[in-house]
Amino acid sequence: MKAAVYLPLEDKIQWWVEMLQGLLPGWQVVAMDQASEPESIDVAVVWRPRTGDLARFANLKAIVSIGAGIDHVLADENLPVGVPIIRTVGDDLTQRMREYVALHVLRHHRDMPRQLQAQAEADWHAIVVPVAPNRTVGVMGLGNLGAAAAQTLAGLGFATRGWSKSPKEISGVTCYSGAEGFDAFLDGCEILVNLLPLTEATRGILNAELFAKLPREACVINCARGPHLVDDDLLAALDSGQVKQATLDVFHQEPLPADHPFWSHRGITVTPHVASQIDADTGGRIIAENLRQFAETGTCPDVADAARGY
Amino acid sequence: MKAAVYLPLEDKIQWWVEMLQGLLPGWQVVAMDQASEPESIDVAVVWRPRTGDLARFANLKAIVSIGAGIDHVLADENLPVGVPIIRTVGDDLTQRMREYVALHVLRHHRDMPRQLQAQAEADWHAIVVPVAPNRTVGVMGLGNLGAAAAQTLAGLGFATRGWSKSPKEISGVTCYSGAEGFDAFLDGCEILVNLLPLTEATRGILNAELFAKLPREACVINCARGPHLVDDDLLAALDSGQVKQATLDVFHQEPLPADHPFWSHRGITVTPHVASQIDADTGGRIIAENLRQFAETGTCPDVADAARGY
Ligand SMILES: NC(=O)c1ccc[n+]([C@@H]2O[C@H](COP(=O)([O-])OP(=O)(O)OC[C@H]3O[C@@H](n4cnc5c(N)ncnc54)[C@H](OP(=O)(O)O)[C@@H]3O)[C@@H](O)[C@H]2O)c1
Ligand SMILES: NC(=O)c1ccc[n+]([C@@H]2O[C@H](COP(=O)([O-])OP(=O)(O)OC[C@H]3O[C@@H](n4cnc5c(N)ncnc54)[C@H](OP(=O)(O)O)[C@@H]3O)[C@@H](O)[C@H]2O)c1
Repeated sequence: MKAAVYLPLEDKIQWWVEMLQGLLPGWQVVAMDQASEPESIDVAVVWRPRTGDLARFANLKAIVSIGAGIDHVLADENLPVGVPIIRTVGDDLTQRMREYVALHVLRHHRDMPRQLQAQAEADWHAIVVPVAPNRTVGVMGLGNLGAAAAQTLAGLGFATRGWSKSPKEISGVTCYSGAEGFDAFLDGCEILVNLLPLTEATRGILNAELFAKLPREACVINCARGPHLVDDDLLAALDSGQVKQATLDVFHQEPLPADHPFWSHRGITVTPHVASQIDADTGGRIIAENLRQFAETGTCPDVADAARGY
Repeated sequence: MKAAVYLPLEDKIQWWVEMLQGLLPGWQVVAMDQASEPESIDVAVVWRPRTGDLARFANLKAIVSIGAGIDHVLADENLPVGVPIIRTVGDDLTQRMREYVALHVLRHHRDMPRQLQAQAEADWHAIVVPVAPNRTVGVMGLGNLGAAAAQTLAGLGFATRGWSKSPKEISGVTCYSGAEGFDAFLDGCEILVNLLPLTEATRGILNAELFAKLPREACVINCARGPHLVDDDLLAALDSGQVKQATLDVFHQEPLPADHPFWSHRGITVTPHVASQIDADTGGRIIAENLRQFAETGTCPDVADAARGY
């Protein structure tokens, strides 16, 4: 079998090629731009492939997304139709996302931004907040990551709810689903966490209409994808006080341009797409294992549903 | 029964008097400085009583500490001997401390101080840290609060250990005890949380010698009592890089004086003794319930061991 690797960070490509080569004895692993006989490539391992990259491989049997989302693959307008897309998930990714969500929900819950402001002014100012069981938090998306995040929040004692496309049952979490459950899910939700996949149905879902359905002074955490958020709507909601604080890990353009207003906004915490970066060694092992299984059986559990978009 | 109330915040005394009076029908509740017949007082409800305050009450049957610690009562050099001291604990206090410890351990774990620094510089700088199961955190004190904090950290996925006077067994937590277990507990402990009571044995325990036993660039969280920490030893350990960051909720003098170096130190997060402030309504209900039980039976489960010091 022959695999071609592409990531936008050029200096990382060779590292990935060598790592995967080491884990896949008997395979041939090459950098995508060095694949001299495109028709010999069986598998493409990619993060944000360039449009047309994958169409060159006439005999492609699988595409591996180096990450949980497949939106960056589906964004390729010339994507070969019908080639299975394997996402890269696993305990490491889930664990990191649980940590990120717990950290940032707790930060907003205990109003750390304002507490740090008080420290900067040497102001002994106690901020007393409700206890977590009296604080309602909601997670949008109850897949791999969202379900684990919601359970973690429930374990910390928060009044936790979740929202997904199809109905779910998660112990300790009040579950809502579909368009019909959306308003009830948002009503009273003081801290909102977005862990939806980016699809046509979810693009721009964090918008003025949604913010208006949250209680006043709600907090919003976006750790899914930048285009879930309508940037200007968030800025307006922060200005009006409808949203009190936001934590954003993902952006329309990454790296976030240096002149973007998010960087210096008092109400916004920016993290550079680190909520859950799969660590490359672990990711490599998972990818190699998935590829071995796919080569042997023609499929593997982490194949995404391209028609559905996630 | 007659109860006298004292807290250092004068404007809160009357509020507490009325609240407890409402919860204890049949009792007489007065502000301590208005107790005209000291020998008629059965119970004193106090936070940081002034030396000599309690000695005035010749027929005192119980002292209630408005808080989990009793060090502020034992600090009274004229404290009447043999009067039971009832501490105020409960789910609310434990829940708030779990939240505080989870928040601040996660902040240090994910290096939020440095991440926020990067944001201030509009610097897209990803800080990649080990996943929680590869991060060792330790909790000193495994009582009401420490045991709950340790279990919460274990639930978040951290490699969690704890240290107490007598041996303990807590699922998911590696337990050490006594002087003989201290060095092993500290060895490799990357984030240290102090939840010991303040006693002669624990005063100044967070000192240079302890810091030197932690791995380099350890983080320290003190949410027990200010005098547990030797302030200058922490500043020196931060300067040398032995300690990377600290979060302090409690101080030798509270409010922390405006000119104290902790306020503006880059490596220190200051919170104004809010880790777990029992909310006054809940605290009042717990105190009233303890007092009813004490009046009826002569004791209650939350009586502390004054000889032991906690
Ligand atoms: N910031 C980071 O570091 C980072 C890292 C990894 C992943 N992510 C993002 O996190 C996303 C989620 O990952 P995952 O592995 O948890 O995804 P997943 O397992 O595919 O789960 C997606 C969840 O969203 C729900 N959903 C999808 N479309 C919906 C709609 N229109 N309305 C309501 N619910 C909808 C799904 O509902 P059903 O269960 O009913 O299908 C499912 O519960 C990824 O797509 C990626 O964008 C971010
Ligand atoms: N910052 C805040 O907002 C806040 C709020 C509430 C309380 N606090 C502080 O938190 C402290 C702990 O509260 P708690 O209710 O958990 O106390 P607790 O139930 O009395 O537990 C104390 C724990 O410390 C251990 N310990 C005592 N002396 C020791 C020694 N010399 N060496 C090793 N271990 C020792 C005890 O060991 P054994 O189990 O073997 O006896 C016990 O596990 C309070 O005393 C108070 O100072 C702070």
